[in-house]
Amino acid sequence: MSNFSDIDRLAISTIRLLSVDQVAAANSGHPGAPLGLAPAAHVIWKQMKLNPKNPEWINRDRFVLSNGHACALLYSMLHLAGFDFSIEDLQSFRQLGSKCPGHPEFELPGVEVTTGPLGQGISNAVGLAIAQANFAATYNKPSYTLSDSFTYAFLGDGCLQEGVSSEACSLAGHLKLGNLIAFYDDNQITIDGSTNVSFTEDVAKRYEAYGWEVLHVQNGNEDLDGILEALNQAKKSQDKPTLIKMTTTIGFGSLNAGSHSVHGSPLKPDDVKQLKTALGFNADQSFVVPQEVYDFYNKEIIQPGQQQNEAWNKTLEEYSAKYPELAAELKRRISGELPQGWESALPLYTPKDSAVATRKLSEIVLQNIQSTLPEMIGGSADLTPSNLTRWKEAVDFQHPSTGLGDYAGRYIRYGVREHGMGAIMNGISAFGANYKAYGGTFLNFVSYAAGAVRLSALSGHPVIWVATHDSIGLGEDGPTHQPIETLAHFRALPNMQVWRPADGNEVSAAYKVALTEKHTPAVIALSRQNLPQLEGSTIEKASKGGYVLQEVDNADITLVSTGSEVSITVEAAKVLAGKNVKARVVSLPDFHTFDQQPEEYQLSVFPDGVPIMSIEVLSTSGWSKYAHESFGLDRFGASGKAPEIYKTFEFTPEGISTRAEKTIAFYKNKQVTSPLHKPF
Amino acid sequence: MSNFSDIDRLAISTIRLLSVDQVAAANSGHPGAPLGLAPAAHVIWKQMKLNPKNPEWINRDRFVLSNGHACALLYSMLHLAGFDFSIEDLQSFRQLGSKCPGHPEFELPGVEVTTGPLGQGISNAVGLAIAQANFAATYNKPSYTLSDSFTYAFLGDGCLQEGVSSEACSLAGHLKLGNLIAFYDDNQITIDGSTNVSFTEDVAKRYEAYGWEVLHVQNGNEDLDGILEALNQAKKSQDKPTLIKMTTTIGFGSLNAGSHSVHGSPLKPDDVKQLKTALGFNADQSFVVPQEVYDFYNKEIIQPGQQQNEAWNKTLEEYSAKYPELAAELKRRISGELPQGWESALPLYTPKDSAVATRKLSEIVLQNIQSTLPEMIGGSADLTPSNLTRWKEAVDFQHPSTGLGDYAGRYIRYGVREHGMGAIMNGISAFGANYKAYGGTFLNFVSYAAGAVRLSALSGHPVIWVATHDSIGLGEDGPTHQPIETLAHFRALPNMQVWRPADGNEVSAAYKVALTEKHTPAVIALSRQNLPQLEGSTIEKASKGGYVLQEVDNADITLVSTGSEVSITVEAAKVLAGKNVKARVVSLPDFHTFDQQPEEYQLSVFPDGVPIMSIEVLSTSGWSKYAHESFGLDRFGASGKAPEIYKTFEFTPEGISTRAEKTIAFYKNKQVTSPLHKPF
Repeated sequence: MSNFSDIDRLAISTIRLLSVDQVAAANSGHPGAPLGLAPAAHVIWKQMKLNPKNPEWINRDRFVLSNGHACALLYSMLHLAGFDFSIEDLQSFRQLGSKCPGHPEFELPGVEVTTGPLGQGISNAVGLAIAQANFAATYNKPSYTLSDSFTYAFLGDGCLQEGVSSEACSLAGHLKLGNLIAFYDDNQITIDGSTNVSFTEDVAKRYEAYGWEVLHVQNGNEDLDGILEALNQAKKSQDKPTLIKMTTTIGFGSLNAGSHSVHGSPLKPDDVKQLKTALGFNADQSFVVPQEVYDFYNKEIIQPGQQQNEAWNKTLEEYSAKYPELAAELKRRISGELPQGWESALPLYTPKDSAVATRKLSEIVLQNIQSTLPEMIGGSADLTPSNLTRWKEAVDFQHPSTGLGDYAGRYIRYGVREHGMGAIMNGISAFGANYKAYGGTFLNFVSYAAGAVRLSALSGHPVIWVATHDSIGLGEDGPTHQPIETLAHFRALPNMQVWRPADGNEVSAAYKVALTEKHTPAVIALSRQNLPQLEGSTIEKASKGGYVLQEVDNADITLVSTGSEVSITVEAAKVLAGKNVKARVVSLPDFHTFDQQPEEYQLSVFPDGVPIMSIEVLSTSGWSKYAHESFGLDRFGASGKAPEIYKTFEFTPEGISTRAEKTIAFYKNKQVTSPLHKPF
Repeated sequence: MSNFSDIDRLAISTIRLLSVDQVAAANSGHPGAPLGLAPAAHVIWKQMKLNPKNPEWINRDRFVLSNGHACALLYSMLHLAGFDFSIEDLQSFRQLGSKCPGHPEFELPGVEVTTGPLGQGISNAVGLAIAQANFAATYNKPSYTLSDSFTYAFLGDGCLQEGVSSEACSLAGHLKLGNLIAFYDDNQITIDGSTNVSFTEDVAKRYEAYGWEVLHVQNGNEDLDGILEALNQAKKSQDKPTLIKMTTTIGFGSLNAGSHSVHGSPLKPDDVKQLKTALGFNADQSFVVPQEVYDFYNKEIIQPGQQQNEAWNKTLEEYSAKYPELAAELKRRISGELPQGWESALPLYTPKDSAVATRKLSEIVLQNIQSTLPEMIGGSADLTPSNLTRWKEAVDFQHPSTGLGDYAGRYIRYGVREHGMGAIMNGISAFGANYKAYGGTFLNFVSYAAGAVRLSALSGHPVIWVATHDSIGLGEDGPTHQPIETLAHFRALPNMQVWRPADGNEVSAAYKVALTEKHTPAVIALSRQNLPQLEGSTIEKASKGGYVLQEVDNADITLVSTGSEVSITVEAAKVLAGKNVKARVVSLPDFHTFDQQPEEYQLSVFPDGVPIMSIEVLSTSGWSKYAHESFGLDRFGASGKAPEIYKTFEFTPEGISTRAEKTIAFYKNKQVTSPLHKPF
């Protein structure tokens, strides 16, 4: 006795044709995977807990399309399930300004994460599952289940080959995330042809090795009951994530079914027609949804979803009476606001305080604020004692059976998996409930996660990279570890904070701004070596991203620096003063934040009439936004004791002051205007 | 009856203490893994085919220390095995200017690849194995074995967690690389503590899923016969790479053996002393090598190695008589020289030729030159029909049993594994024999391989990224795929060519320079959309990295552009000319190559007295090296038809000419000097 009937099959045909029509209208896109995955999408969404009238409902099930190029499928589902996607939106698929772009984007209603770059979505899904487990462990009480949602993901061969997904899924198995269910679209087709040409590993065995449960649906094209059975089995596995390997035919129903040509090219018009006819639709009509299909989804998804949401609201009210503090915290988090006055926990420093490495100052910040911010969930890619990312009382996020922690824990041992960590943080952030995720590694190895960092910026996930050992200052580990191009790279990424704080007040400012920002990720670059507390630094000033540390009237030059070089620049200014050369000193801990300040303020920091020289022991690329000349490092570093390396490369008070004098001489008798002035 | 005796154990103790002494002398470094891996290192190196007097001998066995932080071990081995490392060199471990830097570097004698960043070495080893298999299949003849070397690698838990190694090892299993033998240092320790906290997958099962043979040595600390037995078993497996899981104790012999504190901190002095005493050495002496150990390695490695090299030389001479052409080719390749006149196969264009996408022009270059350059070995990360990276007659590099190709094939189906591809290319290049490896993907996804690309630049591996779909010009795939920061990132990396050719002659120039360069990798950014052949472009001029496309006397402005925007800039110059505004047009296809030109030439391209404006539909970051003002894209792209996106962002002749006029107005009455002039 099947769980499915004609109306289900009509719905699936509708999904298939809506997807094909989107790609045809755009004459661009990927029809193959939507045709193959329509049955699974229908089966899963039919039972998902979703309220299309409230896409942000915290206890909704999450669906991630990791093979994001199949997004015509996702848009079809969103439309049918009552989300804010009209038929006209679908008709404008892949057109400029459309609500249905070529790959799904986070800000769209019902889209949980931006996907397209392979391997990211499934890794985000691991993060969504971590957040759900943590949220449930934190707030659920006996008789009050506020969080019990599942995270579903579709992924294909491409995502499975990508290293980022290997990292995230290995961790998911270790963490025993039973609330994560991934459907592997096993269609044996890649862009280069059959998977036989490059991808012949035993995927099921690998995922079992990770500690996942692996199920197999032999006929993903038609066996709806088989799909549902696997789904229900997966939901029962409480301490293993599940991979359901579904064998499908790419482009099912097309004349080119099973070939790689149907992956990323629109179906030919005659192919579209024959498909419509075969499915019992009118070959000459497009974007057709039979009314009974709308009614069916209304009955199966939309109405139940609203009712479940209302029941949840009621549960929350009863919970609020019994657990008023927890409820208030939960509501605050869902509203996306940090607790009032949280910043007062940020440490303040004066020049009398001792010199401390900014990685250590960062640790003190985290220690100070962690109890005030229950939404903060940290971790490190196996460099905890080097990154100093874990507060003393932290409980590790682990499955309780390990004896190493529990799901209410807020410190994640990510392992040596930087890219996985970055994508997981994006997922944690995307869950909602104001999760503030941070992850530590060496600054140089944030580059391993470039794919995920880019999506943090594109989607606006306010995650934080605690990036220590930020320059040649790390010393003996040498050029393989010493960043050069890293900050230039991330500064060139739109919507990215790139903090390089110089002392304790600046570290506090970096965290203040990074945690307050709701839609901008941050890299916080921190030193291994001790740095003095600077005269003139305050949290308030540093929070502008750039400020005058030492003002001087009738200055001969403005020296601008960041992080470990600011104090050396201050010393250089003294050397210059000894020669009657007046140097203003500016600290510029974050370009992005500085760029948000009013123009008048920016010009007060970088005024006309005075040549500006930057000093930073990293690539000079990008500094010309603010400086006329740049003293930096445009070559790889060296292995040795840090002070010796600094001396060899002349990042000393003498090395800086000499170049300052050359700069002054160079611009003598030239009209000097601030680089902030632009003709367009 | 053991294969080993007291002298072997004395040698192992010597290795252990030399390693500990290096770290102690530097008061920095990683003593734990060297202590645990000394036995395996001794067993493997004792039977390796190496000629320390000829570190470049093409048929030497390769050894890669993927856990590069254990390099004190490697330097000890290199010293004992007679390579050009003196005791004084070891004594200067991790000091500035030392021959023994904190992580091993490619240019050192006997070091096959630079390691340190985890996951890279084992992935390079896959590349070394691919190159060896290809080289053997290409040149070996019945009775003439010129290539039969093995590739050995050590790796630890860290490398195994990194996604790049998952990608490379999955491919190695698919390719059935029987000549690859990896030793997994199973010490169950990571920086964060026991592997139990984050890495609990079944590694053996995963590697079996990849198609590897997995062997286990229970006591890697002392069971020398067990290690040798596994090694011999692995060498017999002709169609599977082998992972030998060796259980060791990190810091074996130290008072802190088995704890993570011995991973990355020097042993305390009393610990060092007790270790020396326990091993029968003088506790007060350091860097001690008993003469019998030198003699032993001379007998076991150095002498046999020289003899094997001499025998090989003889075989080559006999081979040369029988196969003169192949021999000449092999000798030419080993000398590192390209064939004379190879560039004459590069296609030339005139403006009469039709407009063609530069990705297509790239395909034509590869088609034209492939038969002339047998050392060229290409591939794509599953985007062959999009990257256009495969010439018609290409044979895929595959195990012959697949029926899909053979090991003499020169086209690699890397699968969706960009980072793995980058690290594998580094390994292929490192093999020697002038291998010129190229790999294709979308420009945006070269970022996934940032860790490997950095090492290409640091080590000087002349690999080539064929990076298509290079801007908003790719259209509907949208912002997830459209590069913005990508070229700014790679331009900020030292020793990196970043080509963005504008037409057919420039594509030919890009390949000419990229293939000629021996120590500098290249990204070649290519368009999806058709671009016209430019008036004024030649291979010779473009080979300088930048040149004047259209000169004008008494110019009002210099417009500099790259790739797809050059032709639009040429049109903009016409619009300006119609208003009596004179614009010189410069094409700057590669900053790095241009920077190598004589200063006089550079100044002829970017002279004083004329404001310079750049036009490139990517980040403006980095352009100030050459331009006063930059018209670029410092925001993410959009999904839509490419011409509409260009129009929306105003990258049109009108959009460019308007900004040019604003620039001219801005600099009117200001003294304008070339940005090439610098005070220091």
